[in-house]
Amino acid sequence: MLPRLDRLAFGADYYPEQWPQEVWEQDVKLMHEAGVNLLSVGIFSWALLERAPGDFDFGWLDRVMDLLADADIKVALATPTAGPPAWLFTRYPQARPQTSDGTTLGIGARESFCPSSPEYREAAARIARALAERYRDHPALAVWHVNNEYGSHAGRCYCDQSAEAFRTWLRRRHGTLDALNEAWGTQFWGQRYYEWAEIQAPRVAPMPVNPAQRLDFARFTSDEYLACYQMERDILSAVTPDVPVTTNFMAGNCKNIDYWRWMPEMDLVGNSNYLMGEQPDNHLGLSLAGDLSRSFAQGRPWLLMEHSTGAVNWQPRNIAKLPGQMRRNSLAHIARGADGVMFFQWRASLFGNEKFHSAMVPQAGTETELWRDVRALGADVRALSEVRDSRVRADVAVVFDYPSWWAMEYEDKPTGGLNYMERVRAFYEALWKTHLTVDFVQATDDLSGYPLVVLPSLYLLSQRGSLNLRSYVESGGTLLVSYFSGIVDENDRIHEGPFPGGLRQTLGLITEEFHPLHTDQAVDVGGCLQGDLWSERVILQGADSVLHFGSGPDQGYPALTRNALGDGSAWYLATRLDPAALIQVLALVREHSPRIAQRPELPGHVESVVRASADAEYRFLINHHIAHAVDVPGTGFDLLTGTQYDGTVRLAPSAVVVLRTPTSAQP
Amino acid sequence: MLPRLDRLAFGADYYPEQWPQEVWEQDVKLMHEAGVNLLSVGIFSWALLERAPGDFDFGWLDRVMDLLADADIKVALATPTAGPPAWLFTRYPQARPQTSDGTTLGIGARESFCPSSPEYREAAARIARALAERYRDHPALAVWHVNNEYGSHAGRCYCDQSAEAFRTWLRRRHGTLDALNEAWGTQFWGQRYYEWAEIQAPRVAPMPVNPAQRLDFARFTSDEYLACYQMERDILSAVTPDVPVTTNFMAGNCKNIDYWRWMPEMDLVGNSNYLMGEQPDNHLGLSLAGDLSRSFAQGRPWLLMEHSTGAVNWQPRNIAKLPGQMRRNSLAHIARGADGVMFFQWRASLFGNEKFHSAMVPQAGTETELWRDVRALGADVRALSEVRDSRVRADVAVVFDYPSWWAMEYEDKPTGGLNYMERVRAFYEALWKTHLTVDFVQATDDLSGYPLVVLPSLYLLSQRGSLNLRSYVESGGTLLVSYFSGIVDENDRIHEGPFPGGLRQTLGLITEEFHPLHTDQAVDVGGCLQGDLWSERVILQGADSVLHFGSGPDQGYPALTRNALGDGSAWYLATRLDPAALIQVLALVREHSPRIAQRPELPGHVESVVRASADAEYRFLINHHIAHAVDVPGTGFDLLTGTQYDGTVRLAPSAVVVLRTPTSAQP
Amino acid sequence: MLPRLDRLAFGADYYPEQWPQEVWEQDVKLMHEAGVNLLSVGIFSWALLERAPGDFDFGWLDRVMDLLADADIKVALATPTAGPPAWLFTRYPQARPQTSDGTTLGIGARESFCPSSPEYREAAARIARALAERYRDHPALAVWHVNNEYGSHAGRCYCDQSAEAFRTWLRRRHGTLDALNEAWGTQFWGQRYYEWAEIQAPRVAPMPVNPAQRLDFARFTSDEYLACYQMERDILSAVTPDVPVTTNFMAGNCKNIDYWRWMPEMDLVGNSNYLMGEQPDNHLGLSLAGDLSRSFAQGRPWLLMEHSTGAVNWQPRNIAKLPGQMRRNSLAHIARGADGVMFFQWRASLFGNEKFHSAMVPQAGTETELWRDVRALGADVRALSEVRDSRVRADVAVVFDYPSWWAMEYEDKPTGGLNYMERVRAFYEALWKTHLTVDFVQATDDLSGYPLVVLPSLYLLSQRGSLNLRSYVESGGTLLVSYFSGIVDENDRIHEGPFPGGLRQTLGLITEEFHPLHTDQAVDVGGCLQGDLWSERVILQGADSVLHFGSGPDQGYPALTRNALGDGSAWYLATRLDPAALIQVLALVREHSPRIAQRPELPGHVESVVRASADAEYRFLINHHIAHAVDVPGTGFDLLTGTQYDGTVRLAPSAVVVLRTPTSAQP
Repeated sequence: MLPRLDRLAFGADYYPEQWPQEVWEQDVKLMHEAGVNLLSVGIFSWALLERAPGDFDFGWLDRVMDLLADADIKVALATPTAGPPAWLFTRYPQARPQTSDGTTLGIGARESFCPSSPEYREAAARIARALAERYRDHPALAVWHVNNEYGSHAGRCYCDQSAEAFRTWLRRRHGTLDALNEAWGTQFWGQRYYEWAEIQAPRVAPMPVNPAQRLDFARFTSDEYLACYQMERDILSAVTPDVPVTTNFMAGNCKNIDYWRWMPEMDLVGNSNYLMGEQPDNHLGLSLAGDLSRSFAQGRPWLLMEHSTGAVNWQPRNIAKLPGQMRRNSLAHIARGADGVMFFQWRASLFGNEKFHSAMVPQAGTETELWRDVRALGADVRALSEVRDSRVRADVAVVFDYPSWWAMEYEDKPTGGLNYMERVRAFYEALWKTHLTVDFVQATDDLSGYPLVVLPSLYLLSQRGSLNLRSYVESGGTLLVSYFSGIVDENDRIHEGPFPGGLRQTLGLITEEFHPLHTDQAVDVGGCLQGDLWSERVILQGADSVLHFGSGPDQGYPALTRNALGDGSAWYLATRLDPAALIQVLALVREHSPRIAQRPELPGHVESVVRASADAEYRFLINHHIAHAVDVPGTGFDLLTGTQYDGTVRLAPSAVVVLRTPTSAQP
Repeated sequence: MLPRLDRLAFGADYYPEQWPQEVWEQDVKLMHEAGVNLLSVGIFSWALLERAPGDFDFGWLDRVMDLLADADIKVALATPTAGPPAWLFTRYPQARPQTSDGTTLGIGARESFCPSSPEYREAAARIARALAERYRDHPALAVWHVNNEYGSHAGRCYCDQSAEAFRTWLRRRHGTLDALNEAWGTQFWGQRYYEWAEIQAPRVAPMPVNPAQRLDFARFTSDEYLACYQMERDILSAVTPDVPVTTNFMAGNCKNIDYWRWMPEMDLVGNSNYLMGEQPDNHLGLSLAGDLSRSFAQGRPWLLMEHSTGAVNWQPRNIAKLPGQMRRNSLAHIARGADGVMFFQWRASLFGNEKFHSAMVPQAGTETELWRDVRALGADVRALSEVRDSRVRADVAVVFDYPSWWAMEYEDKPTGGLNYMERVRAFYEALWKTHLTVDFVQATDDLSGYPLVVLPSLYLLSQRGSLNLRSYVESGGTLLVSYFSGIVDENDRIHEGPFPGGLRQTLGLITEEFHPLHTDQAVDVGGCLQGDLWSERVILQGADSVLHFGSGPDQGYPALTRNALGDGSAWYLATRLDPAALIQVLALVREHSPRIAQRPELPGHVESVVRASADAEYRFLINHHIAHAVDVPGTGFDLLTGTQYDGTVRLAPSAVVVLRTPTSAQP
Repeated sequence: MLPRLDRLAFGADYYPEQWPQEVWEQDVKLMHEAGVNLLSVGIFSWALLERAPGDFDFGWLDRVMDLLADADIKVALATPTAGPPAWLFTRYPQARPQTSDGTTLGIGARESFCPSSPEYREAAARIARALAERYRDHPALAVWHVNNEYGSHAGRCYCDQSAEAFRTWLRRRHGTLDALNEAWGTQFWGQRYYEWAEIQAPRVAPMPVNPAQRLDFARFTSDEYLACYQMERDILSAVTPDVPVTTNFMAGNCKNIDYWRWMPEMDLVGNSNYLMGEQPDNHLGLSLAGDLSRSFAQGRPWLLMEHSTGAVNWQPRNIAKLPGQMRRNSLAHIARGADGVMFFQWRASLFGNEKFHSAMVPQAGTETELWRDVRALGADVRALSEVRDSRVRADVAVVFDYPSWWAMEYEDKPTGGLNYMERVRAFYEALWKTHLTVDFVQATDDLSGYPLVVLPSLYLLSQRGSLNLRSYVESGGTLLVSYFSGIVDENDRIHEGPFPGGLRQTLGLITEEFHPLHTDQAVDVGGCLQGDLWSERVILQGADSVLHFGSGPDQGYPALTRNALGDGSAWYLATRLDPAALIQVLALVREHSPRIAQRPELPGHVESVVRASADAEYRFLINHHIAHAVDVPGTGFDLLTGTQYDGTVRLAPSAVVVLRTPTSAQP
């Protein structure tokens, strides 16, 4: 993954520009203590490196790079293009982004640029090229880190330059205005376009703007950021073909970027991940982000480029991590396929917006529990070195789709309670707690390797995806579909005929009418489960009803159905169940599909994931309970403690065990 | 009402432009099945009819009109001016509306036009004239449907063109700047104007803007939309003097338009009505809208131009209609004076913002309960044909006033909890549940025909209205007034002297001080009722106290008073009661005023309304309970089933019965 | 304080321009009845006095001034610059203020001006000069009242002219760009500036803008309003050197103005104060505002320029005053050092935004309880004449700091629950209820006179303040510090090293990590108290732990500590306690510091404050309970009733007693 690194990566974002040079020397000493071997440097340093267009000052960065090279610490060298200097906007005020109501966003923060601005792009190319040429042969350079968390903070830009770029993008996507009018359904509300110039960004209007237009604008924005990335990547790769290029995703937490489309362009997937401190079981969100990152990396190892040693600074209440939590979180990322663990940031800042964010070296210094934990973690990561380049073994697939996420949130749905990510997380939690490791996939992917594919409310489904899912089932797969899936195509246009048009043949049923429930209304499902939010009138056309609604507007009608189709089967769940109830649905599904793995011996708070290489299998066992020890089945050599287990592993509260067994020893 | 239609109207908005021509043929076949005889066509078709200024394409509409004429289906032909084409805004960006904070609203939705824009008006006139001239003699044409739901979605425009038009309007209203300065009280906060050009639209300011200015701006906006209507109406009527012209109101649900001022301009009142799905007893809102529509029609029949067969798509939870509800709702509109029932829309859309809105032909097609219900409803409507042109008999009057609605919502009132429509609905509910049919009136109307006139918190009352109400009482009427009525004149200027200046002589009392209650504070009224929100120190000056406050800041002071004046009496209720308590107040009032009708034999969930013609009386009885049957007194021939009742009608759950008796048979 | 007035002031804002001249005569008659001797006149009269630039019309004001002079009523003559006339903005649209998102605020309200606008300032200077010259020798003129409640309503302006003025201000504050870059920490997020012109106002950006920049912008805004004041003051003082100049503060309720910086410029401190009607014990907020006003006046008497006789009109529920409350409120202001009591306004308006605000003459006229109370109050104020010019005796000091207020509200803090004023009010309440009179001070003031100084969460503390507090303790003072104090310096830059850097030596401890609590989480403190919101890991470095956390993330660690330092001691409270618990903490502190006064004999609802002159001491005793009488110790002559007390005073419900004793008689 990182050819210039011989171990798992361990490190942080490093901002030496915030400190006098004498601190740098102490930093390197402490980094050695902690086992740091990789640092992201330069992320927001543009204004320091380029004082005016073309007027570069690399002196301080030269000194930092040399110092780190001397200390044998590698650098993920960042292009600083996430933080354009003030002079760019003095010269080109039009490079500032605009919100959908026309508000122009100002400077003084970060990421305040329009991704479609030619002036921004030209300046970004100049600084990227200057960096590449200056450090092309520097021994510290290990990887290029382009920009930072693209699209996560600034969101979509609705300025006139963006509208112009949107029109160009639309010509490419639709070819002709007739095709665009057809795709957008512009007969509705009299929106037909006769000239490209008539088309605008979807600015606020008296009522919600055409959803197909907004969907294309969402795609366009993701593509514009991707184009920024590609432009820099091309410059860097041309100068240093052997140095991998990456940027840090925010998998699962950034709605604006469709990372599936970025996948082919990534030498390496990097990810930033932050937990919601007030949320119980927030390690589930961590696993989800890790599985997503690995999926975006096509199963290859990826790099955790940022997480936190303790509290962050931007949540309503920035809860500090509990004892042992930083270790569990870090090793859980490795379990999910990360080949390195990095933090934001090395040393807590004294000023600026992030000074209350935790760091490896806290404000209170090194005589602290936090620093002792950081050093211990460095040793743990080093002890896991041999898992490098091994691959995670997934059990099931979950379809994850950005356009569905986007389109489901537009107004004017059967109920305002629809929430795409809530359903993704609910199914993910049910799978996690039954210890099934998830790969995220697209509906058009080859799914034949998975015994079970889950569709959590996949509102938008293309014709190609529809056919692919059907053929997956016919070939013996098991498909589990939740309500309001397969409703529209990629232009938010309803698949003609009864709902769910994209899936009704696969599922063997139609829906006569949606019956969204009242706020706080619950419906009985099969006498044992309770649904809310959604009910619908399912008419079977080949499928069998497995559970019926026992109350509500569809009392007596099917709530859970199964359609045997070819060699496989397709299930449909017509209401919203919580994760505990979904676990019971999964159990029903598994009764019919024994290929799906079963690990009933593990309690719900134990994480169990396997990474495997050609020679060995590594089973990660993490006890997320901070008070209870638990005995779990396990055999092998624990890389972290050197203990050899034979049949049973006692997991202390908060414990992590990584059992190595030879590949041949696996059942 | 519709001379070219020989029955009650039954139909929908029809958008053939969203479908290939082969579907049109199926549509006509299904329309015949359902008994459809009227369709609104062309509502948002501007961009399809006029490809660029003056470049018309009527081909598709010709084919639709001919097809419908051949099928003997009449058309409410719409001018498409609610959805201006994109090319209008490319050419005239200034025709877009601006919100009060200066945000320019964009295209991609509908109704995104400034009603004061000369460019918009010129273009609207051109398309209206072109349509009128093309279809003037078309046999399908039954009525002109101008624009759509004026002012309901785009709201008020604060752009510079609007400000300019506002100044013109102000010159007309006030004549001189001195008069305007006096009316607006510009001595307050130093706002005196010396030039017309100094006056602006009431854009957001550091504090709330002058309420008299805002009130005039609200009147101005309503008048500007009316001017748009009048301009089109004049064009259409000039070409086709025999074809009535209408537009669809949103009675009770559109705050921006003062329909009383539109009344004299309407050949026919049309209305769109949608229920709040999550609201219990939402048929009360339906009745209120129906009574308002009839009142705007000066008692003549009106046309329900839109409602829904099932769920809508814009509420927090779009609850589908329960079995029987579409029928009850439809026939309840007829009971309130509608001479036709139409839906949005004929066939559910596949794309755009309204694709999840119900329709007569749902996505699931015609093998559905919904379609079967639609066909049955068509037969019901046909069975009621003879009620056409008959008039509703009202029992009482409720004063309804837009400027009061507007002005009461401005900031800086004695309490923020004041809500005009909440009080209108509360009194309406109390009257509905005592089976008194309501006419809505203006305070300046001739009220002599009503035994009871109710004023639900009529904050704003002109001198003329004040005198009219007094003379109504003196001539024998009974007036029931709720708190915070008669406070200001038409310029939001307090009637000088003690509150309530516009009513204190009529009521025989003054208010020494308002005592708004704390949040969640309740006060005892007469030992039996409970008020909240409001209390005040009433000093009697001729009136008698009927009930006293038993607690709160005005303990021991009058809460409900009665003033005998001339031949009548005026009641004042000095706190907020819920509808159940208002029913008890009405009972007290009725004890003194036996002319008010009394129908104690009916349960609260049964609707009972009478339409009468020269020859016959039609009593509509609707059981709004979906589970309980009920016996009610009734005699006559049920138009819907052909049953003859003699003394008692058993109403099944959800049942509707329409009893015809000869007029002479009435007591 | 007011040399041209021989008694305590009693009066109101007076707007004769809203009434015909015949009403003026009645007004004067009623003023005499009530004992009015001072009126604020002309506050928003600009548009009436100047019809176009330089076109003055003083006729009506001449008549008012003469009438009042004849009636021997003095005038606080206002420059009307808080309400610029419409013509100013027609001529100079750029003089309108802009919000941080670029919205331009319109006219039609008041205070809609950019304080940095040269056009506004020029016009303000012209009208101020014209007034000064016209009325320089008028016998009614007693004091100049400049503008109105500067900065309280319009807030900060972010327009281009403001940005330009901001840059000028920054040059003055920082001298060089290097110094500014250092102060603002522009290395963070790549914000380094190379040209002054690159710096902008902190407009909305994709993420929160640099907190040091915002802090400077907040200072700048306060200074810009001050510059407006100074400009007018200079003009007025040049013409009438003997007439004091003031403006009305909104002490405690205006966040935008740092009144400490205005202090040196004020001939006299005026204040406007309004209670929150729905808040229980809202007399505490009154006392706080009074103590602040006196502190801004450097202990000298000040003038209550506005409060209300009854309800206001801008709160969610405008609760009227209870019987006796207007009297208690008015006399409580005098107790806190006011040498006069004035109301907004004399006569209730008939129009405009404030017509539902109470006044001395209510809408209901003079046959009202309110008017009778006003007249009685006039007599009370006259009875207190001799307290004029006496000084309040304070017991303790509380540090109050605007930059801390500002900076603590910026995003990205350890928890979003931090609230500066909440802590100030909580400590104030605890002190009030233990009957300790508070002076507010700055951290850099000479504190040696106070036995106790309290720091309620003083987030921002300069190095100078830090040293001053330490030296205060070393010299024998007692310091009580609450959590999250002394964290950053005046540029929002963390004091380097462990928290709390500005106080750790004084407190004898460091904080290893902040542990913000979950929403609704409580922690035990010392087995007897309960904290919430905040916990932290305190490591003692010299201090003693007085109370420990009994639960939560820091269980077993110190919660309340005491550090003996030099001749004094410094206490630290590491969680949030409610006022009742703070009273217990104060009791612990007092055990160690007997110099702090103790008045345990008074119940919590009795206010007790002392004003003293050279000859006499005046003890104000106010029973804030409206139902219970109470006996309290007291000796002396009650100025209000003429009763002589000897040892015990029986305070009836709502009663006020002002006991005079000769100074020599004090213990």
